[in-house]
Amino acid sequence: MNDKLKQQLDFILEIDKEKNILRQTHLSGHGRRENDAEHAWHMAIMAYLLKEYSNEPVDITKVMIMCLIHDIVEIDAGDTYAYDTEGLKTQKAREDAAKERIFSLLPNAQKEELTALFDEFEEARTAESRFAHVMDNLQPLLLNNSNGGADWREHEVYASQVYGRQQKTRYGSKQLYEITDQILKENIKKGNIKE
Amino acid sequence: MNDKLKQQLDFILEIDKEKNILRQTHLSGHGRRENDAEHAWHMAIMAYLLKEYSNEPVDITKVMIMCLIHDIVEIDAGDTYAYDTEGLKTQKAREDAAKERIFSLLPNAQKEELTALFDEFEEARTAESRFAHVMDNLQPLLLNNSNGGADWREHEVYASQVYGRQQKTRYGSKQLYEITDQILKENIKKGNIKE
Repeated sequence: MNDKLKQQLDFILEIDKEKNILRQTHLSGHGRRENDAEHAWHMAIMAYLLKEYSNEPVDITKVMIMCLIHDIVEIDAGDTYAYDTEGLKTQKAREDAAKERIFSLLPNAQKEELTALFDEFEEARTAESRFAHVMDNLQPLLLNNSNGGADWREHEVYASQVYGRQQKTRYGSKQLYEITDQILKENIKKGNIKE
Repeated sequence: MNDKLKQQLDFILEIDKEKNILRQTHLSGHGRRENDAEHAWHMAIMAYLLKEYSNEPVDITKVMIMCLIHDIVEIDAGDTYAYDTEGLKTQKAREDAAKERIFSLLPNAQKEELTALFDEFEEARTAESRFAHVMDNLQPLLLNNSNGGADWREHEVYASQVYGRQQKTRYGSKQLYEITDQILKENIKKGNIKE
């Protein structure tokens, strides 16, 4: 086997570990906790099916690969819950170290390509990364809403916290933000999210 | 919410169930059984990273979406193990019914698009579908090999069975078939696959 292919297969085997990183979101049907790989799979299909709602035209391949790889760093850094204020302080440093270690398994050109895609997602300044963030917000919202808002209730989340995160959806998709706002208002009304 | 978006979101919530469909493959590190959504996530990233090894140039977006959706029918039809001869007899009928029910949740144009992609994958006559099949074969092979061939040993699989399935990899990627053949020979030598 040539060195390049060996590096690619080593990376492919390494990212298998992402299937063990659990999120706070539960699967529909009041299921178990979701893992990062499942979440990314769901986001990539959603991006493909909902691309017509992006505020700007997007390169859908780029959005999909961004969705698929955006949580790989959590293999080392762990999942940081969206409303965990302590964890959020150290998140960047933990994820930067993980990004360097994990993407360095790849041949150099692909290391650079995936690192650039990961950074572009994090910075959320391009049409593709903004639309990928819409998926990152909408996917757990749909699952949680289908479970009667159980994840919000468990974590005693306030409306200001949820809106702080979800309002960024507007920058990627005004139409999907309208649905987000509608779902949040219903969950506030039902007491699943604290006012 | 307009009807079209409601249909899209209904489909998106429905396919969450794919995360509960377990395969016979175990995660690396002698982990638990893998589910269909994780397997599809892994395949889509692999396709993107390994596209240079396709025998023919491919539309990588098409390969990725094919990888992501190719097991959705198993929500109703269940996973059929590659070497389950009884299950394989009824697989097509079970999967056809599932395909009709699940893709019909989508707006008509997307139902037709995803059905066509699913059928193209099944027929394996285009460059994209052949390369997607390489991923479908190579992904569990890499996991199983990393676990000392435990899945082959558990199912007492014969070399003729594994080669029967894996030789199709040649039609999508001669280079990745070489690696496949090398991994299989090592596992036959170690007694993980019966001669």
